[in-house]
Amino acid sequence: MKPNFSMRLRVFNLNCWAIPYLSKHRADRMKRLGDFLNLESFDLALLQEVWSEQDFQYLRQKLLPTYPSAHYFRSGIIGSGLCVFSKHPIQEFTQHVYTLNGYPYMIHHGDWFCGKAVGLLVLHLSGLVLNAYVTHLHAEYNRQKDIYLAHRVVQAWELAHFIHHTSKKADVVLLCGDLNLHPKDLGCRLLKEWTGLRDAYLETRDFKGSEEGCTMVPDNCYVNQKELQPFPCGIRIDYVLYKAVSGFYISCKTLKTTKGLDPHSGSPLSDHEALMATLCVRHSPPQHDPSSTHGPAENSPLVTVLREALTELDQAVAQAHRWATCAGYVIGLGLLLLTVLCSLAAGGGVREVAILLWTPSVGLLLGAGAVYTFHMQEAKGLCKARAELQHVLGRAREAQDLGPESQPALSLGHQEGNRAEDQ
Amino acid sequence: MKPNFSMRLRVFNLNCWAIPYLSKHRADRMKRLGDFLNLESFDLALLQEVWSEQDFQYLRQKLLPTYPSAHYFRSGIIGSGLCVFSKHPIQEFTQHVYTLNGYPYMIHHGDWFCGKAVGLLVLHLSGLVLNAYVTHLHAEYNRQKDIYLAHRVVQAWELAHFIHHTSKKADVVLLCGDLNLHPKDLGCRLLKEWTGLRDAYLETRDFKGSEEGCTMVPDNCYVNQKELQPFPCGIRIDYVLYKAVSGFYISCKTLKTTKGLDPHSGSPLSDHEALMATLCVRHSPPQHDPSSTHGPAENSPLVTVLREALTELDQAVAQAHRWATCAGYVIGLGLLLLTVLCSLAAGGGVREVAILLWTPSVGLLLGAGAVYTFHMQEAKGLCKARAELQHVLGRAREAQDLGPESQPALSLGHQEGNRAEDQ
Repeated sequence: MKPNFSMRLRVFNLNCWAIPYLSKHRADRMKRLGDFLNLESFDLALLQEVWSEQDFQYLRQKLLPTYPSAHYFRSGIIGSGLCVFSKHPIQEFTQHVYTLNGYPYMIHHGDWFCGKAVGLLVLHLSGLVLNAYVTHLHAEYNRQKDIYLAHRVVQAWELAHFIHHTSKKADVVLLCGDLNLHPKDLGCRLLKEWTGLRDAYLETRDFKGSEEGCTMVPDNCYVNQKELQPFPCGIRIDYVLYKAVSGFYISCKTLKTTKGLDPHSGSPLSDHEALMATLCVRHSPPQHDPSSTHGPAENSPLVTVLREALTELDQAVAQAHRWATCAGYVIGLGLLLLTVLCSLAAGGGVREVAILLWTPSVGLLLGAGAVYTFHMQEAKGLCKARAELQHVLGRAREAQDLGPESQPALSLGHQEGNRAEDQ
Repeated sequence: MKPNFSMRLRVFNLNCWAIPYLSKHRADRMKRLGDFLNLESFDLALLQEVWSEQDFQYLRQKLLPTYPSAHYFRSGIIGSGLCVFSKHPIQEFTQHVYTLNGYPYMIHHGDWFCGKAVGLLVLHLSGLVLNAYVTHLHAEYNRQKDIYLAHRVVQAWELAHFIHHTSKKADVVLLCGDLNLHPKDLGCRLLKEWTGLRDAYLETRDFKGSEEGCTMVPDNCYVNQKELQPFPCGIRIDYVLYKAVSGFYISCKTLKTTKGLDPHSGSPLSDHEALMATLCVRHSPPQHDPSSTHGPAENSPLVTVLREALTELDQAVAQAHRWATCAGYVIGLGLLLLTVLCSLAAGGGVREVAILLWTPSVGLLLGAGAVYTFHMQEAKGLCKARAELQHVLGRAREAQDLGPESQPALSLGHQEGNRAEDQ
C-alpha cells in the first residue's frame, strides 16, 4: 500500500420496515429502494428489518449488476432481518445472535421470535481490511417504563464485545444499524466507550438531512405520531459508526439522511430515515493523542459507564430471580392441586370435576415451568454479561493502580481507537 | 521478544462428569481433582461438565493459591459446564453458544438444556498472545443411528468459524475439550481442515497413557461397558489441538492420559480420561512448507470435507422441513378439531364431551406449534451454516480457477497454519 493511500467509501444504511402483511406499501417501497440503490451505486448497503427472505432475494436479483455480493443473516425463528449488498467481493462473514432478546410471552412485541443479531462482513479493499458490522437491537416500546432496558444494555455490550474480539486484525471498522438507543442512552455510551467507535453525525462537517440527524421524524407519514410526541424533532436511533486502527485515519466527509420522503419520488422508503455517509480512509503515521481523556482513571467515561451498566444489570438479575421464584411458587401450587385432584378422582365423590380440572392444572404447571426456565436462563445471560463487565472494570482499576504507562494495554477499547481530531 | 524465545506450556484437560445428584462420588472426585491440580501446578486447566456453579466455586477456592485466575462460562438453562483455571492472569474472555444443540423434547438426553458453547480466554505470556479455547459438543448416544449428527457437524463448523474470526491476532491457538467426535469423524476433519489445528496425540513423540490415546476406556469403572463394546480399546473423543502463526513454532513435547484410574489414589477422576500436554513454543523464521498438500484444489482435503458436510446439511435441512410440515398438519387438524368441538358445545348434544376434549385439543395445538417453531428455527440454523460452507467452498474453487499463486490468500484455514514437521 502506498504511503499516500487514500480511499473513499460510500455507505448506505436503512431500517426497511418490511414486515410481510403488516408494513404498508412494502412491495412498492422495496422496488423503489432497489432502484435508488442501483442509481446511487454505494460501496456498501446495510439493511435491517428485511424480515422476509423473499424480499432479500428480490433485492438481490434487482441489485446484482451493481452489487454483485450480498448476504442475508439467518437466525432465530423469523430471522435477524439483516442483510447487506456490496459492490466489492465479500471475503468472509459471520454473525452473533444476542443472548437476551425480550420475552417469548410478549408475543405482540415479537422481538423474541426474531433472533436479533450482529452480522460481520470482511472486505479487502485495495489491500485494506474492512470489518463492516450491521445490527438491530431490541425495540423500545415505552421509554418511561422500559422493561427491555437491561436486555438492550446486554445487547450493546455483546455487540461491543463481538466487535472487539473479531476486529483485531482489521484496518477499518464500520458499524451501521438501528440501535434503538438515543445518543446519550447507557447502551450507546457503553458501545462507544468500549470500542472507541466514532459517530458519523457528530464527526462530519458536512451534514445534510433531518434536524439533529434524527432517523425517525414526524414528517414521515409511516411514523406513529403519538409515539414521537415527546420528541418534536424526532429521535436519532440509527447510526453510522467507525474507527481505524493505528496507521490509518478515517473521517466522515459527508453525511446525509432522508427527511421523511424518498429522495426522488417523494414517498418515504421506510418509517426510518436512511443514512448515507461518505467516509475517507487514508494512511496516517501512528501517533499518540495527548488530548485524549479516555483512560482507566476511576472517573473516566469508560469506568463510569461500566459502573452504570453494572448497576442496571444487578437490578435486572434480581428481577429475573423474582420472576423465577414467583413461577416456582406457581409450580408448587400446581403440583399440590394435581395431587388433590388425583386423590379426589380416585376416591369418587366429585370425580367429574376432578377430571375436568386435571388438564388445566397440567397446563398451569407446564406454563409455570416454562416461565421458570425462561427467567433462569435470562438470569444466566445477565450474570454472564455482568461477569464480563466486572472483568473489564477490574482491569481498568488495576491499570489505575499501575499508573498511566499501563493504560494503552488495559484500556482495550481505545487500544485500537484512532485520533479524534478531524484532520 | 528475544529471537531465541522459548516457552513451555503445561495444559490439563478433563471432562469432569459432575452432574449434581446423578454422577457417582462427585464430591470426592472434585476434591481429588482439586488436590491433583494443586500438586501438578499446570499453566492452564480446562474443564468440561462442571454443571454446578457451586462445584466451580469449590474448585476456585481450593485452587486459588496455584491458579489465581479462573472463569466459569455461563449459558443456556443449566449452563455450559465449561470452566478454566489459569496460573497466569486472564486478559480477556468471551464465548459463543452453538446455534443448534439437540431437541428440547429429548429431555432424557438433556443436551438442549445445557447451552453447549465454546469459551475463549486470551492470555499474554512473556509477550506472546495465547488464545485458549475450551468446548464440549453434543453427545453421541447412538453411533449407528445418530440423530444429532448434523447438529454436531454444525457445532464443529461454528467452533472452527469462531476460532478463525477471533484468533487473527493470536500468536498461538490452543483448543481443548470433549468434541464427542472420533478422529476420523466428519466434524473433526472439518474442524482440523478449516482451522489448521494439529492434534497433540498425533504430533507428539512422547506419549504415555491409554491404548491409542483413548479418553473413554473400558478399564474406567464409571464407563458404561455396554456402550464401549464395539470399541475394545475405548474411544478418543477428548482432544488437545494447537497451532502457531507464522513466526512461531509450537510442538507437543509430551502427552499423557490417565488410564481409567486416578494417577495417585487409584480411583478415577471421571468417566473420561484426563489429558496432560507439555507444549513448547519458540520463535521460528516464517517459511513456506513445500510438502503441504493443503490447498483449494478440487480434491484437496478441505474441499472434500466441505462437500461432505454440505451433503450432510442438505439432508438435515430436508429432515427439519419434513418435521415442520408434519407439525403443520397436526396444527391444521387441531384447529379443525377445535372448531368441531366449539360447534358441538354451542349446539348442545354432547356438550360435556366437547368441553372435556377442548383443553387437550388446545394442548395438542400448542404442542404442535412448539414443534413447528422449533424445527423452523432448526432449518434456519442449518441453512445459515450451509451458506457459510458454500461461501468457503466457492472461494476455494475460485482460488483453483485463479491458479496456485492465490492459494495462500484463499485457503484461510491454512493461512495461519504452521509447518507440520516436528523440528
